[in-house]
Amino acid sequence: MKRTQIPQSCKLGEGVVIEEGVQLGENVQIGHYTVILADTIIGENTNIGSHSVLGCQPYKNKRVKHDVSKQSPLVIGKGCKIGQHAVIYAGTELADEVLVGDMASIRENTAIGEATVIGRNAKVECRTTIGKGCMIQTGAYITADMIIEENVFIGPEVSTSNDKYMGRKPVALKGPHIKKGVTIGNNATLLPEITLGEYAVVGAGAVVTKDVPGHRTVAGVPARIINRKGDSK
Amino acid sequence: MKRTQIPQSCKLGEGVVIEEGVQLGENVQIGHYTVILADTIIGENTNIGSHSVLGCQPYKNKRVKHDVSKQSPLVIGKGCKIGQHAVIYAGTELADEVLVGDMASIRENTAIGEATVIGRNAKVECRTTIGKGCMIQTGAYITADMIIEENVFIGPEVSTSNDKYMGRKPVALKGPHIKKGVTIGNNATLLPEITLGEYAVVGAGAVVTKDVPGHRTVAGVPARIINRKGDSK
Amino acid sequence: MKRTQIPQSCKLGEGVVIEEGVQLGENVQIGHYTVILADTIIGENTNIGSHSVLGCQPYKNKRVKHDVSKQSPLVIGKGCKIGQHAVIYAGTELADEVLVGDMASIRENTAIGEATVIGRNAKVECRTTIGKGCMIQTGAYITADMIIEENVFIGPEVSTSNDKYMGRKPVALKGPHIKKGVTIGNNATLLPEITLGEYAVVGAGAVVTKDVPGHRTVAGVPARIINRKGDSK
Repeated sequence: MKRTQIPQSCKLGEGVVIEEGVQLGENVQIGHYTVILADTIIGENTNIGSHSVLGCQPYKNKRVKHDVSKQSPLVIGKGCKIGQHAVIYAGTELADEVLVGDMASIRENTAIGEATVIGRNAKVECRTTIGKGCMIQTGAYITADMIIEENVFIGPEVSTSNDKYMGRKPVALKGPHIKKGVTIGNNATLLPEITLGEYAVVGAGAVVTKDVPGHRTVAGVPARIINRKGDSK
Repeated sequence: MKRTQIPQSCKLGEGVVIEEGVQLGENVQIGHYTVILADTIIGENTNIGSHSVLGCQPYKNKRVKHDVSKQSPLVIGKGCKIGQHAVIYAGTELADEVLVGDMASIRENTAIGEATVIGRNAKVECRTTIGKGCMIQTGAYITADMIIEENVFIGPEVSTSNDKYMGRKPVALKGPHIKKGVTIGNNATLLPEITLGEYAVVGAGAVVTKDVPGHRTVAGVPARIINRKGDSK
Repeated sequence: MKRTQIPQSCKLGEGVVIEEGVQLGENVQIGHYTVILADTIIGENTNIGSHSVLGCQPYKNKRVKHDVSKQSPLVIGKGCKIGQHAVIYAGTELADEVLVGDMASIRENTAIGEATVIGRNAKVECRTTIGKGCMIQTGAYITADMIIEENVFIGPEVSTSNDKYMGRKPVALKGPHIKKGVTIGNNATLLPEITLGEYAVVGAGAVVTKDVPGHRTVAGVPARIINRKGDSK
């Protein structure tokens, strides 16, 4: 039988549930009623708010096709900060010093790089990789099967997608590939399979339907390259 | 006094609250700290995650006009899957095999058809009907007084509305009518009172201001009919 | 040592956590598992749902610049209604009769005026002021350092921003200034630093890139003034 380790240096709130096989590092702090599901591994000095649920297994009904086999344990690095009401799935790995905002959710088979911020209410779907030092702002929607490289800024309420037939035909799902240093304004919409080149900038509210070369700024619906003016708004 | 029935085959997590009058079918499973409010009826083989709240009564302040009289019980069908942190109101009925994602919310006087998916963080307002086999993706906003027929696909972060005066004049609220087989791309915006005909397709990021005929594809701001090209992106 | 006051007229659900220094007025009602963090002050006749977390202190990682010094207590007025899974930070003040929807979040150093509605899943960031009688609809994103005057209507899923360089250059953050009586349609996008004049109207899905004069209606991407036709859609 797997034993749960709770070092004496950890501080747990009221009613915290620690299921079997969980491993907590030194000085982990957990708020009230947070639930740590079976086998989750949490690094030292990580802080978690109240009412979060960590280590969920995927589920589906007959309308959904994705894999719901049992996932490997959720691994959370050292010195991470996780807010209230966050939901993070098994099969995922958060590097050190990641911040996960209140009510953010991160699905299975996802990797989040060092010191990246997953903002309040942001939603990260399965099989997605996010590099280090990224800022995924409040309410952004990061689809499944997407690659985000390092130091990317994704503004509030940005929306992405990975299925060009939107369920009408079978197709391999592929989200956008966002290269390092890209900046995306609030409420922009990204279509499936596009690539945003290094340090590209997408204006607020733009609908990006095709690839954007590196170091260029696009805006509008559909998004077009606009002249750069020192400050690219 | 109404007695609460908990069959021996049910499996409840830590601290689950079952208020009086609740009826649970055989083999219902409920995660930690989920709250089942008074009189809720849950069908057999339904699975519910942690921290959900089911069977809420509506509330308001003086800025809000809607009816807050006591609702009939929430009825959840057989074989449903409900995630973590979901909130579902009384006066609503979920058919069998419905999936409700993490942090999704469904208001009173709503009916959800068989095997439909209400995605993670999706919000369904009151007095709305959603047919069977629909996919309401992550973060979509489904307004009150709206009709969605069967086998509709609503992409992530799609937004709808039901008040053409946006509160400036009294008007009967009426959301869009979305006919069967419609497909709507991510972050599209739908105005009140429009009808999307059967199997219409709305592009990602489109702003749909008027009716769309059946089997046509629209895109842009405002949305216009575009030539169909085999793949309608 | 600070003592927690719980008047006999208050009604608390299962497992409610009341940390030290909390002050509750007469007839406060609190649902199951709601957490009231240290020093929070709640006025009489206020009603709170299940699983909310009130009085959080801010946190950050090294990718984030904002101030995380200890905030003064959260103050909630009389006769407020707060839903399920709401998260409200310390350093903030809600006037009387405010309604906060399910899963809404309000950050530190924010003031919400009398009888204003912060809708379900709406997100209000720090250092923002919202006047009385406003309606912030479901899922709207209200950025930090923003001013919203009285009787403003912000539609569902509206998005705002406060950093014209989107993190690429140091700049004083400044969100939009929305004057009294403004109406904003669903899923509109507002850029930083703009002013919307009194009783201006923004169409659904518009992207507003510059100031809008009072009593004018704008729509489109980018938003332009359109002729007013009695009903301004």
